[in-house]
Amino acid sequence: MLAKRFYELSPYVPGEQPKDREYIKLNANENPYPPSPEVAKVISSFDVSSFRLYPDPDAGELRDAIAHMIGHGLTRDNLFVGNGSDEVLSFVFFTFFDSCAPLYFPEHTYSFYPVYAGYYDIPIERKPLRADYSIDLDAFLAGSSTGVIFPNPNAPTGIYTPVQTIRSFLQKYPADRAVIVDEAYIDFGGETVVPLLTDFPNLIIVRTFSKSFCFAGARLGFVIANPPVIQNLFTTKNSFNHFPVDTLTQKVGTAACGDWPYYRRINDEIARTRDMFAQEITAYGWTVLPSLANFVFTRKEGLSGKSIYEAIKKEGILVRHFSQPGIEDFVRISIGTPEQMKKLSGVMKGV
Amino acid sequence: MLAKRFYELSPYVPGEQPKDREYIKLNANENPYPPSPEVAKVISSFDVSSFRLYPDPDAGELRDAIAHMIGHGLTRDNLFVGNGSDEVLSFVFFTFFDSCAPLYFPEHTYSFYPVYAGYYDIPIERKPLRADYSIDLDAFLAGSSTGVIFPNPNAPTGIYTPVQTIRSFLQKYPADRAVIVDEAYIDFGGETVVPLLTDFPNLIIVRTFSKSFCFAGARLGFVIANPPVIQNLFTTKNSFNHFPVDTLTQKVGTAACGDWPYYRRINDEIARTRDMFAQEITAYGWTVLPSLANFVFTRKEGLSGKSIYEAIKKEGILVRHFSQPGIEDFVRISIGTPEQMKKLSGVMKGV
Repeated sequence: MLAKRFYELSPYVPGEQPKDREYIKLNANENPYPPSPEVAKVISSFDVSSFRLYPDPDAGELRDAIAHMIGHGLTRDNLFVGNGSDEVLSFVFFTFFDSCAPLYFPEHTYSFYPVYAGYYDIPIERKPLRADYSIDLDAFLAGSSTGVIFPNPNAPTGIYTPVQTIRSFLQKYPADRAVIVDEAYIDFGGETVVPLLTDFPNLIIVRTFSKSFCFAGARLGFVIANPPVIQNLFTTKNSFNHFPVDTLTQKVGTAACGDWPYYRRINDEIARTRDMFAQEITAYGWTVLPSLANFVFTRKEGLSGKSIYEAIKKEGILVRHFSQPGIEDFVRISIGTPEQMKKLSGVMKGV
Repeated sequence: MLAKRFYELSPYVPGEQPKDREYIKLNANENPYPPSPEVAKVISSFDVSSFRLYPDPDAGELRDAIAHMIGHGLTRDNLFVGNGSDEVLSFVFFTFFDSCAPLYFPEHTYSFYPVYAGYYDIPIERKPLRADYSIDLDAFLAGSSTGVIFPNPNAPTGIYTPVQTIRSFLQKYPADRAVIVDEAYIDFGGETVVPLLTDFPNLIIVRTFSKSFCFAGARLGFVIANPPVIQNLFTTKNSFNHFPVDTLTQKVGTAACGDWPYYRRINDEIARTRDMFAQEITAYGWTVLPSLANFVFTRKEGLSGKSIYEAIKKEGILVRHFSQPGIEDFVRISIGTPEQMKKLSGVMKGV
């Protein structure tokens, strides 16, 4: 009864959500702060009877608000929105990658990329990181690929690739193949590649409201690209689900974009907390990769990542461990409030 | 730059949402009444800061609430939820239909079915309706199919197929091929096929909150099936978007399920309005197909569907016209409030 393609699936496994006790949850890169007060206002004045009607399928007002917030001369024609960047990424994979050649991405990166490739039967090739765990963009130039995807900063390392490095790569990469830069974590200290859109029609930027906008539970993600790319994504969306973003999410997303100073403030605070935390555990003998994301990737000589994860969990704090060879000695730690990180660094001092 | 599969797409076209003037909107089968007062309570007491965390990926509480509401001994293991029945249907198509044989569905039916088939490269065969526009289930028994899908009641005709007829069909149809019954409109007078699940593991029932639950804007749909089917759908979902239903939608959906008497009352009212409206326009010389949905499909001797649609639109009321040969003389009219239908029947008297 199952379709042949079903057997190609290997589903994504997200950070655990155990319910046996209260944990400080630093395992899913969620934001420790609440959304802007403007969001609460929109919800409390929401006209519930409007739920009886279908949402705006094109989310025009929300796309205007995002364009206005990001600036750089963007308009709604540069924007596509979806039910989380996970759905947006799925549409991007469908639209731009096929079986003519493998999709390239870094060996250690967001673990949903190979899952989408399985969903759409896209062959993949993982390109090793450099010895310092940074992404080796030159490795993506070898051979023939259907396209390239990488996060900036990368996950789970947190390492940022400078805009100038990405520009040089785009100058050498075939202009008729899509290059996806997943900027899920760009708001914690990195610089966006949006200005490169003018020169590179094959550049596609994916963003999420889950991290820097404290909206993991609201499910909202978007694409920034040139208008022809956006039009193609609309065609794909309209062949899958005409209305992926519900009415209330469109409204709260719009309100959130209107209060960028609030998000700038909390995300700067998270960056400061990250840097202090990294400094502190470095002093305790931990190796911390240089992160511009809202998490750090760290290990301690002589300990396995699994044993670190377990020692920290025993103290009521959840972090994330990945068992893939090459990164199995690390744990990924999301940045919480200064108080939470203080508690964790205390625990890590003793591990 | 576009994937080969992109060229197979022919996107869905939903009911128009013109903004040139205020219309009475009877073209998208939306419910004229607001959701239950319990929904407003949930929204006004919603803890906005919970948005910072990811939703329950399995929507356990919501699935419990749906199971409890529907009864028939169902549990959460019989339920899968998604971002509208459109997303749910897309996952069903991915999971159960492939290119080994064509998918069968009625010639005139929900026009998203062929769109999904295009998305997943599934060959299709449309089986003609009977002369009275009812679905001919016997036509689905001929040849070899990858599966079957039809709505009950059917759209855009509104015609209901009795449970006993579907049971007889399932007894003759191969037990290793999925049969999808799309019960989007079942709450307006039809009887569900849920009791057949015990005997037919290949039966899959799709439902939506958009119509009878006044939740078109909230995006919520679900599947009722035996546990192995549900597990397979989870595997598919987790390979596409781990969290398709946001936190607030899970909460308002749960609250809605708790107030079934409210929905029973408004949907019975819609059924009464439909029957009165049908009687009235029949008296004015219109032919109305027998409907158990929240819409009617009607035509008038000597007039084209397009001219009817335009004459009604000129009076500030939107209905839906389909240009496919065989139904091009009909219009589909969603059932609104008694006052709206009174105004429309007045207009139709003069057409």
